[in-house]
Amino acid sequence: MPTIIVEGPSIDIEKKRALVRGITETASAVYGLPGHIIHVLIRENPPENVGVAGGLLADRRKESGTDR
Amino acid sequence: MPTIIVEGPSIDIEKKRALVRGITETASAVYGLPGHIIHVLIRENPPENVGVAGGLLADRRKESGTDR
Amino acid sequence: MPTIIVEGPSIDIEKKRALVRGITETASAVYGLPGHIIHVLIRENPPENVGVAGGLLADRRKESGTDR
Amino acid sequence: MPTIIVEGPSIDIEKKRALVRGITETASAVYGLPGHIIHVLIRENPPENVGVAGGLLADRRKESGTDR
Amino acid sequence: MPTIIVEGPSIDIEKKRALVRGITETASAVYGLPGHIIHVLIRENPPENVGVAGGLLADRRKESGTDR
Amino acid sequence: MPTIIVEGPSIDIEKKRALVRGITETASAVYGLPGHIIHVLIRENPPENVGVAGGLLADRRKESGTDR
Repeated sequence: MPTIIVEGPSIDIEKKRALVRGITETASAVYGLPGHIIHVLIRENPPENVGVAGGLLADRRKESGTDR
Repeated sequence: MPTIIVEGPSIDIEKKRALVRGITETASAVYGLPGHIIHVLIRENPPENVGVAGGLLADRRKESGTDR
Repeated sequence: MPTIIVEGPSIDIEKKRALVRGITETASAVYGLPGHIIHVLIRENPPENVGVAGGLLADRRKESGTDR
Repeated sequence: MPTIIVEGPSIDIEKKRALVRGITETASAVYGLPGHIIHVLIRENPPENVGVAGGLLADRRKESGTDR
Repeated sequence: MPTIIVEGPSIDIEKKRALVRGITETASAVYGLPGHIIHVLIRENPPENVGVAGGLLADRRKESGTDR
Repeated sequence: MPTIIVEGPSIDIEKKRALVRGITETASAVYGLPGHIIHVLIRENPPENVGVAGGLLADRRKESGTDR
């Protein structure tokens, strides 16, 4: 601990590196704790498994070309 | 927020739509908040990764034909 | 399992009853499973512990009278 | 979504602001998404409820003056 | 990592110690990893915030004297 | 409930059985509850999705042959 869990869409490994680096720096500075005890878990949720506004993200993208 | 995380078995996309629709309606009514700020994450857990009563769901199904 | 975790603001016990009833009905119908194996965990997050758009919900409410 | 959950010790409101700001900036840059759809939930875990190395953080602190 | 999150009712500190000790021993043996990298988070859920079978645990206890 | 969520690396089915058995025994003894109401969810996180000390576990392993 601290452990940070990130629920987001799929990303490539370069973005994972940047995500872990940035979050660990912030958490280390805020908590005043060394980076080596800070853990980050990245979860990649398929758009079919994410609901926003009562519909699936997967359906929404098809309709509108929205990309989140 | 609100964000609702659903831990369940695998389901097809039609069921995912129904799950997100129903949960969002309930949450929107209860919290008095518009649906577009309500998020749902569906997690599909393989029976090999779920333990009930000290055993894996995967083993239990084989033995008994139980289907949950 | 299924287990549903709801991350939201504080609500009174009547709303908790309605939330659990509605979510359990939806989950029971979608998964085709009896209600007694469906669990719901309600988490009540103080606005000081919720970040939206880079700021705390607690600060945002003060500024704008927004209520989510 | 993205939603980021931070499991850590108790912190004051200034640190919460810094945590949300820093994490949202990183997530917004990495995912290429506007900050207003990024949510952060901060959880403050009492040292009595955190286990490390088989013991409670609460006991460890008493013994050694360790502060994480 | 590994990190184990336990969602249960309130327990006293002696039980927390036993929970962390037992879970860490099991996880250390199964993963073949030293105990000091294994973290446990205990969450104590009030019965008013737990739903089973469509109702709150808090209501169920009153009706039946059930104690889980 | 109780529900225990285990965040760890990938493991084979024999280890999953041992993990569920051990954790359920501990939880059942500590909470004084029958094993059949105790649920365990095992999550297998790819090393590319786990951050420790500001870097990905996937990168760390390559560099040092470290195995956690």
